[in-house]
Amino acid sequence: MNFNFSKRLDNLHASAIREILKFTTDPTVISFAAGSPATEALSAEMITDLSKKVMEKDPILALQYNITEGYTPLREKIISMMNTRYNQGKDFDRLAITSGAQQAIELTAKILLDKNDTVICENPSFLGSLNAFKSYETKFVSVDIEDDGINVEMLEKKLIQNKNVKFIYLIPNFQNPTGVTMSYEKRKKVYELACKYDTLILEDNPYGDLRFDGDDIPTIKSLDTEGRVIYCGSFSKVLAPGLRVGFALAHEKIIDKITVCKQCADVHTPMLSQLICYEFLTNNDFDAHIEKLRKIYKQKAHLMLSEIEKKFDKRIKYTVPEGGLFIWCTLPDGMNSMEFCKKCVDEKVATVPGSAFLIDESTGSSSFRMNFSTPSDEQIIKGIDIISKIQF
Amino acid sequence: MNFNFSKRLDNLHASAIREILKFTTDPTVISFAAGSPATEALSAEMITDLSKKVMEKDPILALQYNITEGYTPLREKIISMMNTRYNQGKDFDRLAITSGAQQAIELTAKILLDKNDTVICENPSFLGSLNAFKSYETKFVSVDIEDDGINVEMLEKKLIQNKNVKFIYLIPNFQNPTGVTMSYEKRKKVYELACKYDTLILEDNPYGDLRFDGDDIPTIKSLDTEGRVIYCGSFSKVLAPGLRVGFALAHEKIIDKITVCKQCADVHTPMLSQLICYEFLTNNDFDAHIEKLRKIYKQKAHLMLSEIEKKFDKRIKYTVPEGGLFIWCTLPDGMNSMEFCKKCVDEKVATVPGSAFLIDESTGSSSFRMNFSTPSDEQIIKGIDIISKIQF
Repeated sequence: MNFNFSKRLDNLHASAIREILKFTTDPTVISFAAGSPATEALSAEMITDLSKKVMEKDPILALQYNITEGYTPLREKIISMMNTRYNQGKDFDRLAITSGAQQAIELTAKILLDKNDTVICENPSFLGSLNAFKSYETKFVSVDIEDDGINVEMLEKKLIQNKNVKFIYLIPNFQNPTGVTMSYEKRKKVYELACKYDTLILEDNPYGDLRFDGDDIPTIKSLDTEGRVIYCGSFSKVLAPGLRVGFALAHEKIIDKITVCKQCADVHTPMLSQLICYEFLTNNDFDAHIEKLRKIYKQKAHLMLSEIEKKFDKRIKYTVPEGGLFIWCTLPDGMNSMEFCKKCVDEKVATVPGSAFLIDESTGSSSFRMNFSTPSDEQIIKGIDIISKIQF
Repeated sequence: MNFNFSKRLDNLHASAIREILKFTTDPTVISFAAGSPATEALSAEMITDLSKKVMEKDPILALQYNITEGYTPLREKIISMMNTRYNQGKDFDRLAITSGAQQAIELTAKILLDKNDTVICENPSFLGSLNAFKSYETKFVSVDIEDDGINVEMLEKKLIQNKNVKFIYLIPNFQNPTGVTMSYEKRKKVYELACKYDTLILEDNPYGDLRFDGDDIPTIKSLDTEGRVIYCGSFSKVLAPGLRVGFALAHEKIIDKITVCKQCADVHTPMLSQLICYEFLTNNDFDAHIEKLRKIYKQKAHLMLSEIEKKFDKRIKYTVPEGGLFIWCTLPDGMNSMEFCKKCVDEKVATVPGSAFLIDESTGSSSFRMNFSTPSDEQIIKGIDIISKIQF
């Protein structure tokens, strides 16, 4: 049978990196290619207890339908947390629970983007978000990312050149894939530009709590006096990704529309997952929990960084993240990383070639992404040693 | 702030029945307006045990990311069940786990529909699906539903008149909202027409297992030799809606595209929910469980039907469902049911006016939908008595 699919799928092809990623399920391959939390960061015992508690407390609540916006006490809890922890959330803001931050991003695209509307993205950026935007036949405008975040001069130029920019998509903390954190000055400037050129900002902050070095920087949402910032948060990295709980904090008019589309999308996020998050926030010391995670990631990141420093050819440049899950390495002289990554996987170490994170994959990249949260310490040491011996 | 939303939202307004539905959360109102499983059908104790088992067996599996298509052993289990129970699923078919059947429907719309593409629907039909289609700027063509299902002559006429029908959306068993079941003859004819006019069928079967009277009728999917039928199933009615687990069984080319879009939508369905479903299917007597549910719904349906028979004005016609959750009542002489339903809610009984299920809500309906699964026996008796006294 031949099927007549929607044109929106024309832009969503299988990535050229599939060839590499399929090796990551091979247990003999050391994978630096994932983006999953460390197993030891998952607090399996605590979540087992929480799930028992939830089911014993009110099983019908966990099993019956609920409202699309999400379980009300959980929403209230997160709103108050957003307020006290991040100083964000104004009177005009509301919150919707989503099935992971991924859904908050997809629904934002759905409510805002018509065909050929423009989205400005950092380049490189998170593949899952780029695909969500592509699936609504978006026109991309990309802006380079520097050591302290997006190039704001280039951003302003692009805002002048492109009149119909629906939003600017940003991951200000420990960006995926580069690990870069946007400076406070740039955050203020980006918000100022969004006001000046009358556009919105989609601020994606899945890793914000996983800062292991340096000082917290206020979110762009905390600067938002006009309701221009749609903020996406997630429990995937601070609790467990398998629960699929995230949220959007945004102007009530935005949340209204997200809710209408979420109702068609999946009615509501599973109650058991929502209630586990609620119990976690209510009956645990969130700060102590985050402190534990930060220690785990700090140790792993520092181990990988020190092994890179010791072993890698000095021609390979790399970012030094202050949090999150990723280090971004760059080969010299505009060399294409695809071939290098293929050689790595032949030696049984998987990394992700930078082209996977580009708006136009075919332009090629001299960089590759390395994840330090998933591999064990032994794997980090062995894997870096193997990569360091690859000829290029 | 004024936001410039996507044009696709222009068709998705708040329904005129909101005014009535908002009363359903008032505990003093008897609600026949829901579509939720009976509380006693939820097997809270069993699911509590299953969730404990899942978390004790392999907590990391429950908490970590998994593949977008869904947990492989669960998919294999459902495929084999589809095969043995419904005689459906050919070599070309594959299965994807979705976040409720609602997501299977939304993703089917997303992969197939471009702006102004045509979808043929039974009229009235399930609001959640109609909204999912509307959100992709679909052109609707509606076909009347009769006592034995869709009017097939009218369907053929519409297929001749409309060249770009992407699919025909059908709920063949105990349709929502009418409770009507499509005859075997009509199922065969509909499939034949889909082949003749080269279109697809989206078969939505959330209530199929809840048959309490009469004999099972083969699904349209079981007749599918060409890969034209996208079949959506759900655990919401046979296990628990709060888990949000459903699935799509369709040609592998369709499932491929659904998977690409599901990855942008929510990455995967929560693992804890999927694993509970897997344990349920693996370690329980499914037939005995279904038998228990059928008994509950049979008793409730028969109670509501006998009270209607005893008390309602003979001018009100109603369907006699053989399964599912709904009875469809129709006022005489093309009378508009909205006013009648408003009078009911003034007397503290909520029903859903038929216009809520129409493709064009403004055309008005003389019918209203009554749900018998959610209210208690006492509420059914009292509510029917109250409605029977409403003047019209």
